[in-house]
Amino acid sequence: METIKAYGAQSATADLDQLSIDRRDVLATDVKIDILYCGVCHSDIHTARSEWGPAKYPVVPGHEIIGRVTATGESVTKFKEGDLVGVGCMVDSCQTCDSCKEGLEQYCENGATFTYGSEDKHIGGHTFGGYSEGVVVDEKFVLSVPENLDTEKVAPLLCAGITTWSPLRHWNVKKGDKVGVIGLGGLGHMGIKFAHAMGCHVVMITRSPGKADDAAALGADEVLISTSEEDMQKHANSFDFLLNTIPVRHDLNPYITLMKRDTTMALVGAIEPLDSMHAGLIVSKRKNIAGSMIGGIKETQEMLDFCGEHNVVSDVEMIDMQNINDAWDRVVKADVKYRFVIDMKSLKEA
Amino acid sequence: METIKAYGAQSATADLDQLSIDRRDVLATDVKIDILYCGVCHSDIHTARSEWGPAKYPVVPGHEIIGRVTATGESVTKFKEGDLVGVGCMVDSCQTCDSCKEGLEQYCENGATFTYGSEDKHIGGHTFGGYSEGVVVDEKFVLSVPENLDTEKVAPLLCAGITTWSPLRHWNVKKGDKVGVIGLGGLGHMGIKFAHAMGCHVVMITRSPGKADDAAALGADEVLISTSEEDMQKHANSFDFLLNTIPVRHDLNPYITLMKRDTTMALVGAIEPLDSMHAGLIVSKRKNIAGSMIGGIKETQEMLDFCGEHNVVSDVEMIDMQNINDAWDRVVKADVKYRFVIDMKSLKEA
Repeated sequence: METIKAYGAQSATADLDQLSIDRRDVLATDVKIDILYCGVCHSDIHTARSEWGPAKYPVVPGHEIIGRVTATGESVTKFKEGDLVGVGCMVDSCQTCDSCKEGLEQYCENGATFTYGSEDKHIGGHTFGGYSEGVVVDEKFVLSVPENLDTEKVAPLLCAGITTWSPLRHWNVKKGDKVGVIGLGGLGHMGIKFAHAMGCHVVMITRSPGKADDAAALGADEVLISTSEEDMQKHANSFDFLLNTIPVRHDLNPYITLMKRDTTMALVGAIEPLDSMHAGLIVSKRKNIAGSMIGGIKETQEMLDFCGEHNVVSDVEMIDMQNINDAWDRVVKADVKYRFVIDMKSLKEA
Repeated sequence: METIKAYGAQSATADLDQLSIDRRDVLATDVKIDILYCGVCHSDIHTARSEWGPAKYPVVPGHEIIGRVTATGESVTKFKEGDLVGVGCMVDSCQTCDSCKEGLEQYCENGATFTYGSEDKHIGGHTFGGYSEGVVVDEKFVLSVPENLDTEKVAPLLCAGITTWSPLRHWNVKKGDKVGVIGLGGLGHMGIKFAHAMGCHVVMITRSPGKADDAAALGADEVLISTSEEDMQKHANSFDFLLNTIPVRHDLNPYITLMKRDTTMALVGAIEPLDSMHAGLIVSKRKNIAGSMIGGIKETQEMLDFCGEHNVVSDVEMIDMQNINDAWDRVVKADVKYRFVIDMKSLKEA
């Protein structure tokens, strides 16, 4: 085991600070990665502050990891030293349940090993994420990253990207479909980019008229201001698919009225109780309200390949590791377009 | 126009009483039906009492109609005098929208003509339902009823039956699937019968342990008492499909925990606001909450044909027309196993 530098929280109320962690030795199927960039996800904050239940401290967050391979285990076949790779929200799963066999490791019935805060089944202890110099991950959970993209802008694809890509694919969104993306943050901005790249007619749905120009720049064909009765009426019963990225409790009913018969609204942001839903709204046109969580490894690779072909990346604001606490404050205020990415050089050279 | 006897309400607070209504003349594509039996649906009560918005009085309810053809219009090809036929919740639709073209007239985008209380587009005025001696209906909305079934027990298939059949078919419930039917009333008892006849492993889900024997008699393989922590734990994440027939506001969350990944719970009972749903429960296993309303004419005929082959009918309690007000009181108290059916002889001979 090697001791490396990382940034993490020692308690729910502590600021993130530099600390030393053990990185596991490279096992036969492992890939050792030197981290170049790591995206900042709101989940990092929820976890480190124990807002989703008591965390295991120290918490080293980060599950939007981009780096280069520096070593590989003896059985590794997919990667070699120097490869540009990514690691997302998971680093392991049982590989035997139906979900794993279908390539949906995020729904592993025995519980996936998440990139930080999960039990490390290989060496004990718990997993440490990407706010760190490096990481060692089983090759099955390592993604190949196209070299032609702006590397630092790829990091958020590993969580914000796949979380929006997976439902668009799962519900067979296709060219010409009218797709609504509700909420313009880290997830929403990727939803717009993907739906646009898939050839959809993309409508950004937001309460804030001020977001119209940004939405258009990201690829939205129209902006629907959800507080406008007239706008809502005009778009009633017209959408083929809604991607709902609102991260907090809200009222689904106005959005349900926008859906065509037999279509789906997929929730990818909120994981808390919602306001009362009116059953009549889904009964009267056989509508579906669904949830979707991240995405599997196979589809994450498909997404990265698609991004390479279509030159899709995230809009990011680069930060140094030392500025993480300020960045977190801004994430909480939704004050970022649209994702912070940590340049890990700042940690290594500290 | 012919004047015939019917039973109806003259206002939201009036008891049902005998009245005379006009039955439209037989148009070219119409079928004239002598009503033998009519089922009593809770919708009849909601409508007549203006609980779903102001009704057009007089209201003659009834949309579970069984009768014999006594005359046909000159263009009618599907039916002849003497045929045993049924009429359900709809008697017309635009026939031109996508929903109509797909055989889903219940979702007609220009508004289906419902069997009672809708505008009659042929002769003006509003439609009168099956609490009546007879009815005249366009042949496209008349169903052929297998002669081998107990005729009076067929009536509830036209609403309670198709309302549960349609979602079971739409979501591809198949032999061997573990299907949960939530709530044991008019809808729930048909859900059990259909799922059983389709070869599913049927679990009746109820808060009332007292319903176990009845559920087993209807074809349930197991009964899950939803107030039992142990039962709920045992069946967690195990259902391939849930048919939710609860007719009033309730909490979906306990039922969502019963669903496998990627499965659907279809709501067919409640058409009002529900308790707060926890988004995390549907996100974490990509679950779907959907609604479904009645069924189209094509699938209603398929259901009746299936019932003829598998000898599936409703469990009913026969009443005379004159006892309708008592019957309604009992429907409101859920005191019927499982559907009242009016023997229309009682009206004709009055």
